[in-house]
Amino acid sequence: MKAVVYKGPREVAVEQVEDPRLEAPTDAIVKITSSAICGSDLHMYEGRTGAEPGTVFGHENMGIVQEVGDGVHGLSEGDRVVMPFNVACGFCRNCLAGRTGFCLTANPGFAGAAYGYVNMGPYRGGQAEYLRVPFADFNCLKLPEGTEHENDFITLADIFCTGYHATEMADVGTGDTVTVMGAGPVGLMAAHSALIRGASQVFSVDKVNDRLRLAEKIGATPIDYSQADPVEQIRDATGGEGTDKGIDAVGYQATVPEGEEQPAMVLNTLVEAVRPTGWLGVVGLYVTKDPGAPSEEASRGELLFAMGRMFEKGLRMGTGQADVKRYNRQLRDMIIAGRARPGMVVSKELPLDEAPQAYQHFDARDEGYSKVVLKPQQA
Amino acid sequence: MKAVVYKGPREVAVEQVEDPRLEAPTDAIVKITSSAICGSDLHMYEGRTGAEPGTVFGHENMGIVQEVGDGVHGLSEGDRVVMPFNVACGFCRNCLAGRTGFCLTANPGFAGAAYGYVNMGPYRGGQAEYLRVPFADFNCLKLPEGTEHENDFITLADIFCTGYHATEMADVGTGDTVTVMGAGPVGLMAAHSALIRGASQVFSVDKVNDRLRLAEKIGATPIDYSQADPVEQIRDATGGEGTDKGIDAVGYQATVPEGEEQPAMVLNTLVEAVRPTGWLGVVGLYVTKDPGAPSEEASRGELLFAMGRMFEKGLRMGTGQADVKRYNRQLRDMIIAGRARPGMVVSKELPLDEAPQAYQHFDARDEGYSKVVLKPQQA
Amino acid sequence: MKAVVYKGPREVAVEQVEDPRLEAPTDAIVKITSSAICGSDLHMYEGRTGAEPGTVFGHENMGIVQEVGDGVHGLSEGDRVVMPFNVACGFCRNCLAGRTGFCLTANPGFAGAAYGYVNMGPYRGGQAEYLRVPFADFNCLKLPEGTEHENDFITLADIFCTGYHATEMADVGTGDTVTVMGAGPVGLMAAHSALIRGASQVFSVDKVNDRLRLAEKIGATPIDYSQADPVEQIRDATGGEGTDKGIDAVGYQATVPEGEEQPAMVLNTLVEAVRPTGWLGVVGLYVTKDPGAPSEEASRGELLFAMGRMFEKGLRMGTGQADVKRYNRQLRDMIIAGRARPGMVVSKELPLDEAPQAYQHFDARDEGYSKVVLKPQQA
Amino acid sequence: MKAVVYKGPREVAVEQVEDPRLEAPTDAIVKITSSAICGSDLHMYEGRTGAEPGTVFGHENMGIVQEVGDGVHGLSEGDRVVMPFNVACGFCRNCLAGRTGFCLTANPGFAGAAYGYVNMGPYRGGQAEYLRVPFADFNCLKLPEGTEHENDFITLADIFCTGYHATEMADVGTGDTVTVMGAGPVGLMAAHSALIRGASQVFSVDKVNDRLRLAEKIGATPIDYSQADPVEQIRDATGGEGTDKGIDAVGYQATVPEGEEQPAMVLNTLVEAVRPTGWLGVVGLYVTKDPGAPSEEASRGELLFAMGRMFEKGLRMGTGQADVKRYNRQLRDMIIAGRARPGMVVSKELPLDEAPQAYQHFDARDEGYSKVVLKPQQA
Repeated sequence: MKAVVYKGPREVAVEQVEDPRLEAPTDAIVKITSSAICGSDLHMYEGRTGAEPGTVFGHENMGIVQEVGDGVHGLSEGDRVVMPFNVACGFCRNCLAGRTGFCLTANPGFAGAAYGYVNMGPYRGGQAEYLRVPFADFNCLKLPEGTEHENDFITLADIFCTGYHATEMADVGTGDTVTVMGAGPVGLMAAHSALIRGASQVFSVDKVNDRLRLAEKIGATPIDYSQADPVEQIRDATGGEGTDKGIDAVGYQATVPEGEEQPAMVLNTLVEAVRPTGWLGVVGLYVTKDPGAPSEEASRGELLFAMGRMFEKGLRMGTGQADVKRYNRQLRDMIIAGRARPGMVVSKELPLDEAPQAYQHFDARDEGYSKVVLKPQQA
Repeated sequence: MKAVVYKGPREVAVEQVEDPRLEAPTDAIVKITSSAICGSDLHMYEGRTGAEPGTVFGHENMGIVQEVGDGVHGLSEGDRVVMPFNVACGFCRNCLAGRTGFCLTANPGFAGAAYGYVNMGPYRGGQAEYLRVPFADFNCLKLPEGTEHENDFITLADIFCTGYHATEMADVGTGDTVTVMGAGPVGLMAAHSALIRGASQVFSVDKVNDRLRLAEKIGATPIDYSQADPVEQIRDATGGEGTDKGIDAVGYQATVPEGEEQPAMVLNTLVEAVRPTGWLGVVGLYVTKDPGAPSEEASRGELLFAMGRMFEKGLRMGTGQADVKRYNRQLRDMIIAGRARPGMVVSKELPLDEAPQAYQHFDARDEGYSKVVLKPQQA
Repeated sequence: MKAVVYKGPREVAVEQVEDPRLEAPTDAIVKITSSAICGSDLHMYEGRTGAEPGTVFGHENMGIVQEVGDGVHGLSEGDRVVMPFNVACGFCRNCLAGRTGFCLTANPGFAGAAYGYVNMGPYRGGQAEYLRVPFADFNCLKLPEGTEHENDFITLADIFCTGYHATEMADVGTGDTVTVMGAGPVGLMAAHSALIRGASQVFSVDKVNDRLRLAEKIGATPIDYSQADPVEQIRDATGGEGTDKGIDAVGYQATVPEGEEQPAMVLNTLVEAVRPTGWLGVVGLYVTKDPGAPSEEASRGELLFAMGRMFEKGLRMGTGQADVKRYNRQLRDMIIAGRARPGMVVSKELPLDEAPQAYQHFDARDEGYSKVVLKPQQA
Repeated sequence: MKAVVYKGPREVAVEQVEDPRLEAPTDAIVKITSSAICGSDLHMYEGRTGAEPGTVFGHENMGIVQEVGDGVHGLSEGDRVVMPFNVACGFCRNCLAGRTGFCLTANPGFAGAAYGYVNMGPYRGGQAEYLRVPFADFNCLKLPEGTEHENDFITLADIFCTGYHATEMADVGTGDTVTVMGAGPVGLMAAHSALIRGASQVFSVDKVNDRLRLAEKIGATPIDYSQADPVEQIRDATGGEGTDKGIDAVGYQATVPEGEEQPAMVLNTLVEAVRPTGWLGVVGLYVTKDPGAPSEEASRGELLFAMGRMFEKGLRMGTGQADVKRYNRQLRDMIIAGRARPGMVVSKELPLDEAPQAYQHFDARDEGYSKVVLKPQQA
């Protein structure tokens, strides 16, 4: 079959690879109809990770069940399904606690597994015609048959659930005001989720005009941090108090308006922008090894964090990649009911063959490539 | 009346000061029977804060109601009461949310107030014969009459509730394993609280032998971090995994075994000692201004925090001073029922006049002075 | 001043009564701008309670602070405020737990107090020019000055918070389907609240066409139970499963389509309409004494409840009057932000003098009188 | 193999039946070392259900893994395991929500499955030499190898987790007072669990002296309801208030002191014994069909429930069989740590061959037969 294969820094190719096959009775093979390119794929693409050439990319996947092992109970050929980016067993103690992003079974020796991602286990990605899905009963979420809502449903694999996870960790509830740092796809999904959960007002902080316009369209108040101190802007808009909750949808590659990277900037901004007793939900990535970091400490993932201020204000913080499985059924039902429209962030659909150009444009932050969905079944 | 008055670095005196009087109809005057000296009093005593000479110390207070204003509904002269160290109004939005440590009314311009503490509002401390208690209906917890359990009940003003708050922020529940950094009074109370909430095993980490023995007496497993890496010791004792939850009862004045201060040491140790998906409860103090800090960043409260590792493990963290009012009624009932015995941490009772010597010994970490209760009504 | 005074079964009059005055330093006097008539006023009006002639009605009140006692800290003359229907002290253990509907102080010997209601304490109602508000700091919620949103804010005294309380007890969250029995003012507010909290679909069950149309306008799916079995209708609309959650906004005076009262009908319908593992939130009134009940047991409040089925399905149920104070600040902020519009249920505004006719029409269920707001300051 | 087979009312026999075999790759076969007789087995034994002759009894099972299918990932031959009485798939939406007692997969058409129980699916019981365990990765909890704690661990299959589930539904927390109706094995486990979760005082209500003595041994306060009104006794012991929480560990076969059955007696007693704002956890069985009921309504599971009083007090209630899988890992760890000793309720161990006599004695409530564990591997 054809698949998007990593060749080396800033190079991917669409190549023939061996078809996946059932390796355990609990596996399924899914024919991929949509596989999205994610910001975190860029880390590998840019060569800032230890990803090996030959890796097949793609952790945001959906499609049609092609074949199931005889230990699969709840799926049949022809079922339309979407898979969380995390591979999870469903029976380890972390999975039982709903922390499927930290499965202890799927990637022995590490808490957490994913498709097509460096260090996240032996699972090939889904930017390909077919995908092997382990623990298929647990990892496949069934969708209504047909092709409706394809761009909405593909967000259930990662970004919608990741944005929602941020609001869960930040304990967003009725009447809350929320600061969301970042208005990329995940930040927008966090803003959307916060409003779904009953936030009274959401501030989306970014410096890219197109993103801020999208945030506004979703119902958020845009804050352009290149124009003025975002903390001041948010305090001014909240009677001097700051917001009840805060979300980090940026991570360690945060940049000051002038462009320099400051890995703790977003965290420390949130500590200031959120009122005493607030909660922070951090889904923007922080890493333990970053060769390109601006300091030696930062290269080990140690950041100058405003702990004194955090403590003085009695803040709480939740961190880490999303446990997609905790949310995807509920958010699917919101899409079906017409109460959520996450597909609005998809900027372009392309056949699999155009993946190399898509990566190139995305890496260059070219307009229209902010969220590309690959369509492996299209010519 | 007599009171413990701060004179300047490492000097307190017992002096005559004006008697407190009702300043609002909602005030009460309490005759103090017990007022404990707290580790946080030492920060002021040592001159490492902006505390003004003339300050009356004492935020851990209990006694007998002497007089109530005519806007007080639920208290009468003669009631035996204990007061949270936080002064709180009971009707601002933080108090309504149970976050009484961050009251917006009692100390205008700052979230949080306390008795006898620098920057925490105009409230005189209770290391004195009498204390004015504002918002008395809200701030006085009634106790059974008599003198029984005096040393247990005095811990309800701060340390027992602070230890319990740590377990609440760390979400300690049935079957959990817990690392508690620090086996001083608060750390011991955190260990006690964790066991009350159903923890299966608690590891108390310290380097002082007496404290480790007390931890053992409470039911915890002592870990001497001067003997070997505490993370290794805890992993060895938990099948390589680390504990489910972690508590910081030390704060920024953490010292390596050799004695040097490393303000982020305890936090970063917890990030390693706690298993993926765990929670941290931080009640050890972190400050925004520390003139004695080992680095310029640390003097502003910015610490080199292992954020990459925290994120990779999907940890959560709650911080800040305890909302004593959320827990004191329940913990009082545990004491009355004989199911909690926090008074065991009290090391000495002294008349008020001996406060200067008590501070001196406590500051020198002399044996027997780890938790002194002053008795203003004793000669 | 003028006030709506109960004279006896089906008779109220607007009469001169003594002006209220400060009775404690913690009281405030509020000049009433809006006071709504509530369905529960009808129980007294119809003579089905032990209400004494002379009672001043009115527990849904808002207005302008006229005078405050000198034990009031956070209010000033001229503040625009709305009061929960429950009178609560803010410092008893139920108030501390957020259960302000069950205050142990305000109505000694009974858990819970209210304005102008039989057995709910000595508090005169607010269908009058002025109202005394005890524990004023706790019981007054400040509103933006001016007259905007008056019909939205008046719902914060009871019905919006009561509807929201139902969704809280039923644990309504993102993606849930919800059955709401009753589309009167409280049922509509429950449906509105469920959607605010992220429900995917809400079914509003009633037999009155006007109410069902309003439910639809709010975003709910109307179910006319006089046309077909509501359980069947709901199952058909949910793939045979029933809804995740259920809300009782009707209570014991439920009637079958033909008109006969069946006091357990709504509860037992919910037990069938909700799927296994579901939650029920019951805010419709159930009483311990009902002289007009269809059976002797029912007259004592003992109803034939489908407990076997409840248990088999593993359902949970929360009951009781709303703790308004837990929600009114947050819902106020939703109104100000334009994210909630509860005022849409107000059907008519009338000067105080027209209260007698308003009660008469409301009692007769005449169109346009489903939710009347009295305006004591209008001629 | 040998198994306990139901022959008809009040008759079981130990007979040869076909050995179980792997029916799906996700199955395991477990050699049973302990299988307990449960009070709910008596319902079938006494002929008060539709259980068919030929049924193999036994839903409280533990043993050693004998064989695993090739779709089983986390188990190996020789592993010591205990199984929840509920059979659950681990991937349906109820299982994902932790409600494994209401699995939608294991018993198609009904929410919930169990071993060896009428209407609970096609699963043979474990009062036999071997047991087939479906969805084995999910349904087997691993235990330390060896034979230690066997009587403690067997309670993880049902009664300890069921008692704990009651405390979870009743939201028992630090400082709570709790009424537990019934001091049979489940009631004792509920009392034990309440104390583990930090209850300050637990009242165990029964009329059998031996049970009350066991309750006392566990740390509860015994209340003999045959001596005086239990509500009065509990109110007297709680300052007139009643307890914070209540647990029903009896169910519909409640009897007044004189012996007559009153199916709603325990529920209505709890409604009186629990203070306003309390929570009830109901694990005592209520059924939808009871031919032996004292009234026609009761035979359909409709009971005269004090709904008026429940509502007036603002109580909440959770019901249904336990989701064992939510608790068994945590409670296992409490046993291993020596912090829970549930095995104290086991009254006798017998070889499988003596099952018929054991049932006879248990049915007759003979002393020493309150909790029998069968040992199929003993001669």
